Amino acid sequence: MDTHHQHAGDMDPEEFRRLGKQVVDWIADYLNDASKYPVLSRVKPGDIRAQLPAVPPTQAEPMQNVLTDFERVVLPGITHWNHPGFFAYFAITGSAPGILGEMLASALNVNGMLWRTSPAVTELEEVVLDWLRQMLGLPGSFKGVITDTASVSSLVALAAARESIQRTIREEGLAGRTDLPRLRMYCSDQTHSSIEKAAIVLGIGQQGVRKIPSDHAFRMRADLLESAIREDRKNGWLPFCVTATVGTTSTTSIDPVRAIAEICRREALWLHVDGAYGGVAGIVPELRSALDGCELADSFVVNPHKWLFTPIDCSCLYTRHVDVLTQAFSLVPEYLRTAEQGVTNYMDWGVQLGRRFRSLKLWFVIRSFGVEGLAERIRNHCRLAADLAARVDREPGFERLAPVPFSVVCFRCHPAGIDDEAALETLNTRILNAVNESGDVFLSHTKLNGRYAIRIAIGNLRSRQEHIDRAWDLIRHHARALEPH
Amino acid sequence: MDTHHQHAGDMDPEEFRRLGKQVVDWIADYLNDASKYPVLSRVKPGDIRAQLPAVPPTQAEPMQNVLTDFERVVLPGITHWNHPGFFAYFAITGSAPGILGEMLASALNVNGMLWRTSPAVTELEEVVLDWLRQMLGLPGSFKGVITDTASVSSLVALAAARESIQRTIREEGLAGRTDLPRLRMYCSDQTHSSIEKAAIVLGIGQQGVRKIPSDHAFRMRADLLESAIREDRKNGWLPFCVTATVGTTSTTSIDPVRAIAEICRREALWLHVDGAYGGVAGIVPELRSALDGCELADSFVVNPHKWLFTPIDCSCLYTRHVDVLTQAFSLVPEYLRTAEQGVTNYMDWGVQLGRRFRSLKLWFVIRSFGVEGLAERIRNHCRLAADLAARVDREPGFERLAPVPFSVVCFRCHPAGIDDEAALETLNTRILNAVNESGDVFLSHTKLNGRYAIRIAIGNLRSRQEHIDRAWDLIRHHARALEPH
Repeated sequence: MDTHHQHAGDMDPEEFRRLGKQVVDWIADYLNDASKYPVLSRVKPGDIRAQLPAVPPTQAEPMQNVLTDFERVVLPGITHWNHPGFFAYFAITGSAPGILGEMLASALNVNGMLWRTSPAVTELEEVVLDWLRQMLGLPGSFKGVITDTASVSSLVALAAARESIQRTIREEGLAGRTDLPRLRMYCSDQTHSSIEKAAIVLGIGQQGVRKIPSDHAFRMRADLLESAIREDRKNGWLPFCVTATVGTTSTTSIDPVRAIAEICRREALWLHVDGAYGGVAGIVPELRSALDGCELADSFVVNPHKWLFTPIDCSCLYTRHVDVLTQAFSLVPEYLRTAEQGVTNYMDWGVQLGRRFRSLKLWFVIRSFGVEGLAERIRNHCRLAADLAARVDREPGFERLAPVPFSVVCFRCHPAGIDDEAALETLNTRILNAVNESGDVFLSHTKLNGRYAIRIAIGNLRSRQEHIDRAWDLIRHHARALEPH
Repeated sequence: MDTHHQHAGDMDPEEFRRLGKQVVDWIADYLNDASKYPVLSRVKPGDIRAQLPAVPPTQAEPMQNVLTDFERVVLPGITHWNHPGFFAYFAITGSAPGILGEMLASALNVNGMLWRTSPAVTELEEVVLDWLRQMLGLPGSFKGVITDTASVSSLVALAAARESIQRTIREEGLAGRTDLPRLRMYCSDQTHSSIEKAAIVLGIGQQGVRKIPSDHAFRMRADLLESAIREDRKNGWLPFCVTATVGTTSTTSIDPVRAIAEICRREALWLHVDGAYGGVAGIVPELRSALDGCELADSFVVNPHKWLFTPIDCSCLYTRHVDVLTQAFSLVPEYLRTAEQGVTNYMDWGVQLGRRFRSLKLWFVIRSFGVEGLAERIRNHCRLAADLAARVDREPGFERLAPVPFSVVCFRCHPAGIDDEAALETLNTRILNAVNESGDVFLSHTKLNGRYAIRIAIGNLRSRQEHIDRAWDLIRHHARALEPH
């Protein structure tokens, strides 16, 4: 078969070779020098749209023009998550090894829905997930699957939890049934919104989510969980699931997973653990205790695209109950039947049929850093956060608003004599906005017991002491300038 | 701020530059020459796993070793979706412009959850989706969002449909309610399994999906839909949604969308159209009629990662009811509140909070090919399929099993005198397996009215006449060798 003169897309292979190298040069410079851009985009709503043609091009355009427009039009509208001064939300990293993995995955362009549609996609996924399981010290009974996001991982886990109530829910659904009471799942008032969203999607409804109050350190109160379950049963609800979190979104607090697991065991509830951010701390020996009790979970999610330097998206869902998960999700139409026996067909494990080759980048990252190299980076982020927390504690007119178990610090400017919450929120909002306008750092906020908190989340591989110093200097500078005299 | 000496991941920027170019060289060769690999991987279950260490590496490994292992260990386990002989399922393409887009997206590594987390991600998505809408001739009232897969796009659409029944479903859920009857949605017996899976996830249940029989050309019988709705209402079901398909998975049949839309209008049901594969045919003027009636849909899904040469994953969901969609999904915790008014925050549009910069690759593809260039490729695939269908029709001992509205041909070997379905299935399975063992082409199968059908799906950009000739030669060769004499 003549295989020559095939065109790569609409592009001669030699043109791809040339442009690909040009793009690699751009990326190398970008990774080296992302801090030359303002981290938070300065465009106004509509600025980018206004520069783009309202109608699509009829004729092909030279790729060089597209790349030029990428720099000219798109780049100013980018908030640079790969900037070392990115400290908002949870900071993430598109590391160089991960980018190389994504390049190859996009070229292969396989769909790993079935074992046979690329055996290496399935088997590398199984192996790399088992590596990560070992790195976190989780039991061998935990089997994993990669999804795109924790939102989907948790949705899939909670669908399995729902199926575990009664194995006919997938057939009969939930609506209009007289044999099924209202369903209740539990989480804390600090749990990520994706859990509530999953409840919406699954037909549990927001009223089916009972949020257990947290303690002074933002950890779910296990005693209140227990009494809530008792009360709900008395009132005709059917409790079926608890979500505990290792590293909540606002403060990275760690729920008492072991105590919660004990309650779940007694009450026969599914225990889902959201370790999307904090789970990777298990790689660091001296932080391993953060995962205490997680070995008892029925499902567990951790996101390498958050704090494991893997390009977005990559979320890992583990469960001890693959049978329930696949019972909830497996649907095999004739056109997807294959003859292989005893293989994993990951399409049976979740919502999506189409599956990118996500394990490749994770494999690249784990091998390129090594387990100790990954642990050292995570340890270093925690060290930087602890140091910042100590500085906040020492600074007059500032107060820290939460413990710092991992790499996120929550605090506010609180000048002596101002105790009105609204005034403090206004002041801290103005400080935050002024700091973010610098272009050097980007911070976000949260609210803790009604108090507005500035949040510094350290998680990008390239963030170093100097970037945190810069953030802290800017905060103190604007606090002095903005606080009432 | 000193921005020098920053390391790109665990890799010196110059090392990334060097390795990135090496990877680009590999990709350029691969795109040019993918047909040198067997299209269907020849490994046995466990072969890949056996070559991978069971424990993760403690120390960092040189990236060069990882790249070597990629070629040595992973590549033999790849089924080459980018091979011009890939004719299974729906053939897809990781085109060169799309790969360049993915490279840049993975380097920027942004999360487009909010407008402010990268205004260009949101605004480019809005613009490119509007381009695609125009290319398909859909009305300006259709607003879009990019998701990963059609499974998720349809799940989101059907969640909105469910919410449209009663705007309290997101709060109250479905279980244990006396005010809500059992819910029913409709599709045909040819509809993709993702619709049934969405019903499972949403708590509608498989029994809540009524599959309307299709006609001789595998199109939903609108008359039977109407009577089914009537019957269901009489029996206490609450009908709420119909899914019609433009390009079903087995045969690419086209449901009578206009007639179905008329029924939906009369019955006040949500009309969802699954055009994941076939939708892009609207780009070709003489095929535009395939989308007749789609302008009346409440939601519409089309996947650029299927037949629009965009690397997986990229699915576009359009709806005329953004208010219902966001009513179903919006959940804004304090830590995700932003000040900008009147902007789109795409996290409110679906399940996932984390969102890759998927519009970038689609923008690269549309500009690099141009609308006419894209139309010409799709037209050409349909021409190749029509030609193959004609050859099947002329060939003694073969029969075509479905019309060919797009680029998929379903047929079987049916030697004179054999009328036992089991015998025909055995014969055609053996032909299919023998053809796939060639390494030159990869075909899959389906069943149509109980008849086993070989399926040739033309969709890869690099598939040309010679590759189809090779498939057809192999089929006839093995048919002659295998059929009973």
